[in-house]
Amino acid sequence: MIIDDVIIGKGIGDIEFSRENTIFVLIAGTTEVSLRSGITAAGASPEFTRITPTVDAEIIGEGKCLSTADPPMTPEGIPTPAIVSRAILDLTGLRSLIVNGGFSVRPKTAFFETYIEPSRDPGLDRAVMEAERVMEAGRRLGKILDGNFKNIILGESFPGGTTTAYVVLRSLGIDSGTSSSMPVDPDNLKKKVAEESFRRRNVRSPLEAATEYGDNLMIFMIGLAESIRSSKMILGGGTQMANAANLIAKVNGRTDQVVATTQWVFSHRSDLFRILGLEDRSIISVMDFGRMRNNGLRLYNQGHVREGVGMGALYSYARIAGFSREEIESAIDDFYTTFLR
Amino acid sequence: MIIDDVIIGKGIGDIEFSRENTIFVLIAGTTEVSLRSGITAAGASPEFTRITPTVDAEIIGEGKCLSTADPPMTPEGIPTPAIVSRAILDLTGLRSLIVNGGFSVRPKTAFFETYIEPSRDPGLDRAVMEAERVMEAGRRLGKILDGNFKNIILGESFPGGTTTAYVVLRSLGIDSGTSSSMPVDPDNLKKKVAEESFRRRNVRSPLEAATEYGDNLMIFMIGLAESIRSSKMILGGGTQMANAANLIAKVNGRTDQVVATTQWVFSHRSDLFRILGLEDRSIISVMDFGRMRNNGLRLYNQGHVREGVGMGALYSYARIAGFSREEIESAIDDFYTTFLR
Repeated sequence: MIIDDVIIGKGIGDIEFSRENTIFVLIAGTTEVSLRSGITAAGASPEFTRITPTVDAEIIGEGKCLSTADPPMTPEGIPTPAIVSRAILDLTGLRSLIVNGGFSVRPKTAFFETYIEPSRDPGLDRAVMEAERVMEAGRRLGKILDGNFKNIILGESFPGGTTTAYVVLRSLGIDSGTSSSMPVDPDNLKKKVAEESFRRRNVRSPLEAATEYGDNLMIFMIGLAESIRSSKMILGGGTQMANAANLIAKVNGRTDQVVATTQWVFSHRSDLFRILGLEDRSIISVMDFGRMRNNGLRLYNQGHVREGVGMGALYSYARIAGFSREEIESAIDDFYTTFLR
Repeated sequence: MIIDDVIIGKGIGDIEFSRENTIFVLIAGTTEVSLRSGITAAGASPEFTRITPTVDAEIIGEGKCLSTADPPMTPEGIPTPAIVSRAILDLTGLRSLIVNGGFSVRPKTAFFETYIEPSRDPGLDRAVMEAERVMEAGRRLGKILDGNFKNIILGESFPGGTTTAYVVLRSLGIDSGTSSSMPVDPDNLKKKVAEESFRRRNVRSPLEAATEYGDNLMIFMIGLAESIRSSKMILGGGTQMANAANLIAKVNGRTDQVVATTQWVFSHRSDLFRILGLEDRSIISVMDFGRMRNNGLRLYNQGHVREGVGMGALYSYARIAGFSREEIESAIDDFYTTFLR
């Protein structure tokens, strides 16, 4: 089977995706670095980014927003990728599980409660105050899921997470930029956070870097990778998940995960994937929203949003599971329309 | 393989239990009927029974009590069966998942958050105010788990749950007694609750009976049975689970579940299992705590506690998975000792 719009790295063997053998796990939480002005577009204002993971979870779990009137959107009104992901989940019947990765406000939908607290701004404070608790939560969830699904697709909703990924990567000597939800990256802001973080405290290991400068997602993924031994972990996300894959390589000594993202991230930050040696184990969804009826979605083609909530991985999942481009695009367009009044 | 102390109903085919193919799911919650004096021994006082599901969950999840200083115990000081179940989980390495079935207080351990509220005293109020939400939570969890585990062992911590089971069974024309956590059943109290409930409101269907007179466990199990199609559901509990199996037969039209309990329940209430036609699809653990060093455990042999937190099912699981009586008994005795100071 040849699928033009899905590029599978040559180090990845056969991928078999079906609704029976795969689960989508969304890890969602706040990192307080998103409260700095200009860091992220995952919310109409910095303060609103606190609740973006909550409402993303509600869209995935319930198909609608419950804690806010409107879905999360960029200041320009471009909607959250949670809408894309939920539309694909509905279309394909894939099952999903939401995990508290540090909600500021708990979502009004079923989720796996871990009691993880929001992570802090690394320029001001240790990012993950209770790293052992977060890692243990990852280990436990991994233990529950391992071996019972062939594929575990992990998505994230962590506004500001590309900034913490940048700081951690730079602390490990990797000075490539990370992506962001904005067409023009806030590189100077990211550098400022990094410099403040490094001034605040030095670290001596990748795990310490993730704890001091990173966020809950990174620590949780390290915990998951400790206990997921039989299932294939598919890290659904852009430079945040590239960073997570790098941490898992350094901390867990494992490089058998797949990273799945969009070409909107990959073409923007292919240098990072190359430097981290991830090209051969990446799946890239070549998504094109140019045919969408809704302008908010068409703007994805111009570098807004790029990735999030496992959107790229879920697109590849749907294509490999046998759904057509047209079916997927219609599902997304139609579902987004239900949010417009 | 012949296991003297596990009796497998003749309608049950081969049972294959291993830590790879099985998960233990604990559904725990409050029913306010337990606040009536004399209804249950699952707590040192009626008010304490509110928190028994919370602390049972902590014992299963963390191996210790976090929300109280001491484990739940009967007024005579006989410890909660959560201790027996956790000891077996530790010994066998079986994985587990805790579900909020209506906690009064949320446990300090990871769990699947459903937002289910405690169920009410059916003599005073509709027992399950949001039955559709509870059923939907069951459906969702079932969807996540179905097909990925060969066996799903369901345990419960619902103090007062044998009283609500009694009321529901009687409303369906079955006038056999249910078991209880006390050596002498509080039959008159149960009858009083039933009469108050029937006076409060009539019902016209088994589902309505479970909603008006029952508790969250019953409704959640009906939801689970809707979405668990490939995995084997093993209802780990006594007369509460016998009642759940009967409701699933009546509401879902399915009789392919197994009920697994202790001989402490079965020999006490074999008439109920017979009337409900459950004998051929029951697994009975012939447990004997007579050799325990701890007196609190030896008293189980005198009809205290009898069942709870999936204890009987987990004992059978461990025996069929290849652990000896002696290993299991030592694990329980040793683990209980860690709670004594």
